Amino acid sequence: MALFDLPLADLRQHRCATPEPADFDAFWAGTLDEARRLAAPAVLSPVDTGLRAVDTTDVTFTGFGGQPVKAWLNRPADVEGPLPVVVEFIGYGGGRGYPHDWLLWSAAGYAHLVMDTRGQGGGWRAGDTPDPDGSGPQTPGFLTRGVLDPQTYYYRRLITDAVRAVETARALPFASHVLVSGISQGGGLALAAAGLSSPGDLAGVIAGVPFLCDIRRAVTITDRAPYAEFAAFCRLNPSRAALALSTVDYVDGAHFAARITAPALLSAALMDLTCPPSTVFAAYNALRGPKELELYEWDGHDGGQGHFSSRAVAFANGLI
Amino acid sequence: MALFDLPLADLRQHRCATPEPADFDAFWAGTLDEARRLAAPAVLSPVDTGLRAVDTTDVTFTGFGGQPVKAWLNRPADVEGPLPVVVEFIGYGGGRGYPHDWLLWSAAGYAHLVMDTRGQGGGWRAGDTPDPDGSGPQTPGFLTRGVLDPQTYYYRRLITDAVRAVETARALPFASHVLVSGISQGGGLALAAAGLSSPGDLAGVIAGVPFLCDIRRAVTITDRAPYAEFAAFCRLNPSRAALALSTVDYVDGAHFAARITAPALLSAALMDLTCPPSTVFAAYNALRGPKELELYEWDGHDGGQGHFSSRAVAFANGLI
Amino acid sequence: MALFDLPLADLRQHRCATPEPADFDAFWAGTLDEARRLAAPAVLSPVDTGLRAVDTTDVTFTGFGGQPVKAWLNRPADVEGPLPVVVEFIGYGGGRGYPHDWLLWSAAGYAHLVMDTRGQGGGWRAGDTPDPDGSGPQTPGFLTRGVLDPQTYYYRRLITDAVRAVETARALPFASHVLVSGISQGGGLALAAAGLSSPGDLAGVIAGVPFLCDIRRAVTITDRAPYAEFAAFCRLNPSRAALALSTVDYVDGAHFAARITAPALLSAALMDLTCPPSTVFAAYNALRGPKELELYEWDGHDGGQGHFSSRAVAFANGLI
Amino acid sequence: MALFDLPLADLRQHRCATPEPADFDAFWAGTLDEARRLAAPAVLSPVDTGLRAVDTTDVTFTGFGGQPVKAWLNRPADVEGPLPVVVEFIGYGGGRGYPHDWLLWSAAGYAHLVMDTRGQGGGWRAGDTPDPDGSGPQTPGFLTRGVLDPQTYYYRRLITDAVRAVETARALPFASHVLVSGISQGGGLALAAAGLSSPGDLAGVIAGVPFLCDIRRAVTITDRAPYAEFAAFCRLNPSRAALALSTVDYVDGAHFAARITAPALLSAALMDLTCPPSTVFAAYNALRGPKELELYEWDGHDGGQGHFSSRAVAFANGLI
Amino acid sequence: MALFDLPLADLRQHRCATPEPADFDAFWAGTLDEARRLAAPAVLSPVDTGLRAVDTTDVTFTGFGGQPVKAWLNRPADVEGPLPVVVEFIGYGGGRGYPHDWLLWSAAGYAHLVMDTRGQGGGWRAGDTPDPDGSGPQTPGFLTRGVLDPQTYYYRRLITDAVRAVETARALPFASHVLVSGISQGGGLALAAAGLSSPGDLAGVIAGVPFLCDIRRAVTITDRAPYAEFAAFCRLNPSRAALALSTVDYVDGAHFAARITAPALLSAALMDLTCPPSTVFAAYNALRGPKELELYEWDGHDGGQGHFSSRAVAFANGLI
Amino acid sequence: MALFDLPLADLRQHRCATPEPADFDAFWAGTLDEARRLAAPAVLSPVDTGLRAVDTTDVTFTGFGGQPVKAWLNRPADVEGPLPVVVEFIGYGGGRGYPHDWLLWSAAGYAHLVMDTRGQGGGWRAGDTPDPDGSGPQTPGFLTRGVLDPQTYYYRRLITDAVRAVETARALPFASHVLVSGISQGGGLALAAAGLSSPGDLAGVIAGVPFLCDIRRAVTITDRAPYAEFAAFCRLNPSRAALALSTVDYVDGAHFAARITAPALLSAALMDLTCPPSTVFAAYNALRGPKELELYEWDGHDGGQGHFSSRAVAFANGLI
Repeated sequence: MALFDLPLADLRQHRCATPEPADFDAFWAGTLDEARRLAAPAVLSPVDTGLRAVDTTDVTFTGFGGQPVKAWLNRPADVEGPLPVVVEFIGYGGGRGYPHDWLLWSAAGYAHLVMDTRGQGGGWRAGDTPDPDGSGPQTPGFLTRGVLDPQTYYYRRLITDAVRAVETARALPFASHVLVSGISQGGGLALAAAGLSSPGDLAGVIAGVPFLCDIRRAVTITDRAPYAEFAAFCRLNPSRAALALSTVDYVDGAHFAARITAPALLSAALMDLTCPPSTVFAAYNALRGPKELELYEWDGHDGGQGHFSSRAVAFANGLI
Repeated sequence: MALFDLPLADLRQHRCATPEPADFDAFWAGTLDEARRLAAPAVLSPVDTGLRAVDTTDVTFTGFGGQPVKAWLNRPADVEGPLPVVVEFIGYGGGRGYPHDWLLWSAAGYAHLVMDTRGQGGGWRAGDTPDPDGSGPQTPGFLTRGVLDPQTYYYRRLITDAVRAVETARALPFASHVLVSGISQGGGLALAAAGLSSPGDLAGVIAGVPFLCDIRRAVTITDRAPYAEFAAFCRLNPSRAALALSTVDYVDGAHFAARITAPALLSAALMDLTCPPSTVFAAYNALRGPKELELYEWDGHDGGQGHFSSRAVAFANGLI
Repeated sequence: MALFDLPLADLRQHRCATPEPADFDAFWAGTLDEARRLAAPAVLSPVDTGLRAVDTTDVTFTGFGGQPVKAWLNRPADVEGPLPVVVEFIGYGGGRGYPHDWLLWSAAGYAHLVMDTRGQGGGWRAGDTPDPDGSGPQTPGFLTRGVLDPQTYYYRRLITDAVRAVETARALPFASHVLVSGISQGGGLALAAAGLSSPGDLAGVIAGVPFLCDIRRAVTITDRAPYAEFAAFCRLNPSRAALALSTVDYVDGAHFAARITAPALLSAALMDLTCPPSTVFAAYNALRGPKELELYEWDGHDGGQGHFSSRAVAFANGLI
Repeated sequence: MALFDLPLADLRQHRCATPEPADFDAFWAGTLDEARRLAAPAVLSPVDTGLRAVDTTDVTFTGFGGQPVKAWLNRPADVEGPLPVVVEFIGYGGGRGYPHDWLLWSAAGYAHLVMDTRGQGGGWRAGDTPDPDGSGPQTPGFLTRGVLDPQTYYYRRLITDAVRAVETARALPFASHVLVSGISQGGGLALAAAGLSSPGDLAGVIAGVPFLCDIRRAVTITDRAPYAEFAAFCRLNPSRAALALSTVDYVDGAHFAARITAPALLSAALMDLTCPPSTVFAAYNALRGPKELELYEWDGHDGGQGHFSSRAVAFANGLI
Repeated sequence: MALFDLPLADLRQHRCATPEPADFDAFWAGTLDEARRLAAPAVLSPVDTGLRAVDTTDVTFTGFGGQPVKAWLNRPADVEGPLPVVVEFIGYGGGRGYPHDWLLWSAAGYAHLVMDTRGQGGGWRAGDTPDPDGSGPQTPGFLTRGVLDPQTYYYRRLITDAVRAVETARALPFASHVLVSGISQGGGLALAAAGLSSPGDLAGVIAGVPFLCDIRRAVTITDRAPYAEFAAFCRLNPSRAALALSTVDYVDGAHFAARITAPALLSAALMDLTCPPSTVFAAYNALRGPKELELYEWDGHDGGQGHFSSRAVAFANGLI
Repeated sequence: MALFDLPLADLRQHRCATPEPADFDAFWAGTLDEARRLAAPAVLSPVDTGLRAVDTTDVTFTGFGGQPVKAWLNRPADVEGPLPVVVEFIGYGGGRGYPHDWLLWSAAGYAHLVMDTRGQGGGWRAGDTPDPDGSGPQTPGFLTRGVLDPQTYYYRRLITDAVRAVETARALPFASHVLVSGISQGGGLALAAAGLSSPGDLAGVIAGVPFLCDIRRAVTITDRAPYAEFAAFCRLNPSRAALALSTVDYVDGAHFAARITAPALLSAALMDLTCPPSTVFAAYNALRGPKELELYEWDGHDGGQGHFSSRAVAFANGLI
């Protein structure tokens, strides 16, 4: 890998050049209202994982359109009293897998709600949540599923799930605080969920090398999946490209960031061809609350890993 | 490319080792009955393509579950009287594109009904038909969409569309005969549609390097997409692999071939890592009617191309 | 793929910086004079392709140095009276293949003369025309065959063939108009043939993502074949690089474009690493007649495909 | 990926065909005696990781030749009384990274001693332990470092570290039982450490897709790193190949397995080109105690992941 | 790389299964007679290379059809009296380059005649010899140039050049003995030149990992260039494949080997995907004189390099 | 390959932006003093290579820390009297191989001392010299071996060997002059050895596409090995990156160049992604003596090859 994006000094100033849709807030308000109207209480069932220091619960909550969404809830075993909850979203192509895959935050002394990703789970970790809505013609993957209309767009459904996961966490009887967290697509969802939460609802936001930021720029400066799915779709459908671009404006992390006042920790990696650093800076520079950026100068999209885990735990501990 | 599958002498004897499901015929009878019960008449609209020697019609017929499916119908312009119709199915990842993309059979003096492929069209040629049913977690692509239950499997829907396309062609007022044709996935669909048609309904079957044959063998001897999607899914879901395997048995071309009595032309390519030759022979050797195999000794999955086009036209001309 | 060439605003202004050779016109006049002096009448033989709506003729005309060149002539069957003729040139590495491979223009109601490419036909579609002249040491491929002298350069011979193909088309008894067309190398040949035709001889020029334009720039900004063949040759022959560069100046599409007054349709693709968009703009901006550019913003060298086919037919229909 | 090794029925019978060196036991007895003679007590320092439910200790113990080796010791926080200890060894190219990277076994209620890998840590996770011994000429990596003499071979040192890690774990005041565990190279080290432990010292052995088994076979049937490093070395040093082969016989997991009587859980993956399944079966079939094999039919070297984690925890829980 | 061809025991028995053409000897006798009839004396010009211990001469001799072929002649400087001459042929894609590139045999005390390869020199080392004969359609490269007729086949010309190079060497006034040598394509040419020489004309034959042996087998078991060029040609020209196969039978090293009685040193590499070991054994096992095989067990096509250089020098020294 | 670095006009002005460490001279003086204090006389043993025109000697001299380093000494056979000596250093991953591999300079009439590269020899040519010092965690390869401290850095040892090789050459009884030479890593070592020699000790410096120049820039503009090893190390060890960068400043060829007054010939290749041209210009522009640059406009890292050999011989001949 080598440096390929803007020089660092320019990155530090970079902002998303795309205005947000005029009805951005109305679009999301309507979407969330409908989800809440169709919501049912979460169903929690204990799971025996063999992990004696962690209590695991299988959670089913209602997401977009009242559809069931799976999650794991891991907590330190035998802990009484209130706990902060970290809601985690998963990277592109992955599902919730096994409870054994998600041990960081219970080790840190938090409850940890890991939201499954509808329809995904076929790339690198299995999933258990269907995406019951079909789709028009699309490039394999999820970035162009239903992209010709904001109403049918896959990420409208997934982001609604994420907001509903936060609401589910807040409703847990032991929840003292709620934070959102995620890497890559998970980071993009964390920004979205935070941007759609009310001020004060979230204690913090953690987004490592987030996906879905400054999307119009991203799809022209990298040929790596998943952004490349978008270019592939437009290549086959040149007359539909403008429409597809206007749809992704509704899910751009830079627009969500402009609504976030909770403390936020982001990371960017200078050699990241999957989520180019300028697109992360576009979101970071739009954040309105206290914020920190962990800059990985030598990393691609694997940016940070264990280092960022320790950084994230320290950030969360500092908030609570 | 190099030879990698069974020696030619063994290929010539190779048969699918997987028995068909006990309820194979009942499964398809029920599926088709429902589609026919929900069917509506096809809607045909003339299209101005600028192609002065070809009349093009945009066709919308009802496929699986009564859902709308798009097609192009190309005919030699200014031809009066009955015409044989070739129903063509499309290779993996492609949609119906432009009428200009499908000129072989009208040039040959046939009517040509090109069925769009639901949900596809994001790989190499655009599509216009949605797949309105959602899916559980899946590997990107279509081979594992809904694969955990034959009832929800993507190819149940697509094969039903194909049977309905044949029925749509037969209902065209000028149709003298109907043949089915396709390359790769299109070849697999041609075999399926033929296997599910009544004896005498079809004048002929053309299937170039067909996909979806001897699937249990295919997914263990090649690592090329799309068969590799299946292995990827099982890798992430080892406890669901047996279930997925039992689903694909319902769409295996070798089982459909055992029901085909119409004259058939197939091709196989000895260096084809996408649809390995043994899997094609498994279907070919099960055919019960007159049959011819065009063997491409030096080809991969691109097997034949213009040569096979000329071969297919000669085959069809010989039948009518 | 991602954007890699000049920004769009700069592309729109880009012109070839290399002056044409002082004896450019004399070089080509001498070459063509000799070809015409050695020319013999074309030989036409009917071919039975099985395509009942198309009449196909096998054509042998004399090209460079009076050498025989093969072509297919496809016409709508049973059409009386004059027809416009589209002369098509083929992309790099391809030959004329089967008549079944070339059905667009007869479907559009035109006669279609597809010129075989001497010596090529080993890359993706077979050919039938030898290149009887040998060559000095060269990088495999055609771009450096005979490149050390404009007189021995492969493209001197091939472009002469192309001009002679136009003359052959014009001599067809039914020809009402003649257009030239091609994609990639075929587009480069279309520009060359048009630039070497007399004003009024051609009704139109169609060149999709043309090769052989602004060559000195092309060979330094991409590492994709076939331009990379040129760099490879210079790498091994540094003392012969200047000579090779001075040879390709005689076949640069930007110089031919400056001589074209017929209406022209070109396409460029912003992510095209094979024929970078700036090199296409260098030709487009030099055209002197009415002109249109179809810009594919999301495409590589596959730029447009069926979309461009429909665009090309509409363009031709608009001229005649 | 596709099946490439022996058929499954043959795999189940496969045994290593290479006899062990006559002085195998003497070689290791001498090596370990020296390490123990030079040993010093482990140094333990508490670490503040921010992980409130886990106590982390930085451990420095003496390994080969009395050289310092780093490790992390993670334990469930606030647990009194005896605990079983899992000693974990790391895959090729990785170091101990951050304590946050190793949370499975403390979550399962075990103490977890993660041994750093001398000199490694530059591939995918950072390390902190030097390999103070130099090396003769070698192929980059570790498989051929010092390979011309069993005495100077890198894996002599690393395996000694592993045995010493077990001894360090057994000396922890709270240790009730000790198990060894690892994936890939870590699995190979687990087999080695178990084979060199006294009967009764270990409660169990967990080795996922272990490296370093049936090495003479492995290096001829795969071209993937790290086994490919061995072939590369022999390619450059054909006259030294026999010597190198005789060295690796001293570290072959099949020979260690023949000395293991503790209960063992292994995994093999049928599409694993890094550690081919036949080489794993060679070790498995040599084991002398109770044993279980988790067979991943669809996996490459990533075999199992979260599934194997849950399987390993259940296996360990069943032993204690 | 990994083992991929026959097991070693089978390799040792492997013979070419293709019979030689009935007119093999007549074909070559006629070809060589014509070349000799058109031959002119070699032209030698001294070259100042700056290499003070080597005398270099630029040689132009007449090869196939009396056409000029370039060579370098390097000799130890200031040596009086007779010298043995090694005639060296070059690997695929390379030309004679600089005299500085060919220093082994003058260092060994031999005269060294390095024959340029007509038309090649664009792959990895520049050339100076044209191939004045043109070609029919071909796959880029040389293996299919003119392959549809033994009379027009490129290797007919090149092998004739090689025989004429031997004759040129034998005519040098100081030549005491003549040996032929080469690696890969150079090895194939060495076998050809030796098979076409009269008994006693050559003191020895050196052929490292020779190309052009057991060609019918080679083109089906590897997908590496240059053998892959042949499969590519047949793929595009299935109806011409049998003809192309019958042409290469005239240049198969196994047939030439059956005519060689001079002492021979060959090498084969077990992991050589370019010139698979079985094809080398097919030639080796056909040799009729004293013979040695250097077997590289761990090598691909780079088999041996400096080791084989030293081996070749020792072999030659032992003959003279 | 394509142009990727600064435009040529900027390259011609480019200088290294990193200041040299304040104790640069002291660091090297101390290092070399120690090596000289521990030095022993070189051991020379004649070798029978079969090369009758070259006398070969196996040399063992003492390098860093008095450690033994191997070399080959090739001389024209039977030459009496003084000879200039070229000391050659080897490219990354290679060892001294066979004497047959190094024939240029004896052919040119020079003595030729080829220094083996400690620990290397596993990449493309075998080596015989160990690197007896161990290392901390490192990325496989040599660029990060011991990089956390200039005292333990691998290149401190290797450069000291290079200086000692020059001293060994100067001590040869027949040595009239000494030059240093090398390609890539060998070129970097030539610059280092020249920069650490006293004025007048060396008659000339030859460095083809030298490695290890302007290193801080190099590691951010290319992702090719070996520079990519450095980025990989920093990626895993972000908190150690600054330390690693400060270490490589001690071995940067731009700093050595600023101390070189001997005549120098360098080469740079404009498409060289391994040793980007700007990094070579950084060294070239710092040279203080007479200098020449051979610029390869079309080359990657293979820049020049036989052409550069002839250029280097002419350069050396012009000095002596």
